Amino acid sequence: MIEGTTRLVAIVGSPVAQVKMPGTMNRYFAEQGLDLALVPFDVPPAGIPDFIALLKQGRNLLGSIVTVPHKQAMAAGADHITDRARTIGAVNVVRRDADGQLHGDHLDGFGFLNAARAHGFHPRGRAALVVGVGGAGGAIACALCETGIARLVLVDLDTARVQDLGAKLRARFPTVQIDFGCATLAGLDLIAQATPMGMRAGDPLPLPQALLDTLTAETLVGDAITVPAITPLLAFAQARGCEVQTGLEMSRASMEFLGSYLGVMPTVDPAALVASPLP
Amino acid sequence: MIEGTTRLVAIVGSPVAQVKMPGTMNRYFAEQGLDLALVPFDVPPAGIPDFIALLKQGRNLLGSIVTVPHKQAMAAGADHITDRARTIGAVNVVRRDADGQLHGDHLDGFGFLNAARAHGFHPRGRAALVVGVGGAGGAIACALCETGIARLVLVDLDTARVQDLGAKLRARFPTVQIDFGCATLAGLDLIAQATPMGMRAGDPLPLPQALLDTLTAETLVGDAITVPAITPLLAFAQARGCEVQTGLEMSRASMEFLGSYLGVMPTVDPAALVASPLP
Repeated sequence: MIEGTTRLVAIVGSPVAQVKMPGTMNRYFAEQGLDLALVPFDVPPAGIPDFIALLKQGRNLLGSIVTVPHKQAMAAGADHITDRARTIGAVNVVRRDADGQLHGDHLDGFGFLNAARAHGFHPRGRAALVVGVGGAGGAIACALCETGIARLVLVDLDTARVQDLGAKLRARFPTVQIDFGCATLAGLDLIAQATPMGMRAGDPLPLPQALLDTLTAETLVGDAITVPAITPLLAFAQARGCEVQTGLEMSRASMEFLGSYLGVMPTVDPAALVASPLP
Repeated sequence: MIEGTTRLVAIVGSPVAQVKMPGTMNRYFAEQGLDLALVPFDVPPAGIPDFIALLKQGRNLLGSIVTVPHKQAMAAGADHITDRARTIGAVNVVRRDADGQLHGDHLDGFGFLNAARAHGFHPRGRAALVVGVGGAGGAIACALCETGIARLVLVDLDTARVQDLGAKLRARFPTVQIDFGCATLAGLDLIAQATPMGMRAGDPLPLPQALLDTLTAETLVGDAITVPAITPLLAFAQARGCEVQTGLEMSRASMEFLGSYLGVMPTVDPAALVASPLP
């Protein structure tokens, strides 16, 4: 129950009614007896400068989780962002630090990988394909590089965007083999689907059928889309005998990293956690 | 429990931790099964323009209750305020209407009078003294004039402020006898105390002792101060046999008017309600 003493964390998007994190995180706060609330803000793009100004001044406002379509604008408006967020060009969380300035990071990639860890996937020395390198896909690609992937294949219909991200990742992670596209899916340990394709009924699969026909049961296939839970790609992968991971798993697994960054959940190092074996 | 779909009403102040309305109103929303939350915002004065800009743009943000020290700045920043709020120079509530603009009003005076109504006080034809004509006192004075008081005595250490308010009230309510100060408290039906005196231990009484010695048991004495509940003035009045009214009673009685104005509680006409006899 919100009182005058309650400290707030925002979640900003437009629309925002579909987000599931407030319910989950507010139940956690209640169970822990914490006087905190995660509060949704439906702010149109034109309102983001005012929202940022308020985040820097609202004394009981700790920071904000950032969702579509504000991840790029919030990255541009924050005072300091991590190298990771700069590589991706987006943030999914900002907080006001003791210096009164807004600091931002993008932790969805670690959320994806922490969910994949629960499926037995460990990045070190493995090969992965990321399909779609917008905010979520870029974050997954970057997190894979940070946690020791050996080979990373990037695919995106936007050639300039994928080559820009690839060049940035090669500069930061020179030991990772980064390819643009691949002739076969055999030998891949992970496929991360991060395009919007699969959100609407009748969407085509996000990869060519000839390539998908090379998918083998050894590959974990994950999707960043939360609704529907089982996208056409995941249904295809299940039919091929693959283990699959839903967008809701990524979103749930992101929560502890976001909470840690915002100082409202136990402190964890996402990269170290994701790279470590399951207990 | 706040979800992504929850619509918000803000309560803005600095500090804001002491406000009791969120707990009360959020329990009401929960009992009614409404997906609404009253959320505290501790915003310093420099942040008010950004807060106003966000109120005008935040799609799930319906408006804001306004508390100290922002009542004057929010009145100046709203697009439209009522005659009542203009007379007082302050608002205690703003809402975004269908025109996308911020509309403001000050309803604390009716809250005070609705609490007084529960003590059997009806304004029409009566005589009242208001001590302290800042935001709350001005609102009480204005509400008394709107609901048919015959004689209104105004007292404030700030001569310019009290004469300015008195002139505005005389212009709007020419049939009300408005006096600055009085020689006796005998014959008054109501005394409304709205100075800060009584908040801190050791504060002097807000009226001269010689005048207080004329207080008789027929007068209802109310205080706008919420902590302590029984101020030195109320203790003095109780010892004289008077019925007393606490600041918490005013605050509770204001809530249904604020909720009505914000469209989150049943619609009531404050002036009509306050002027009507108890059922």
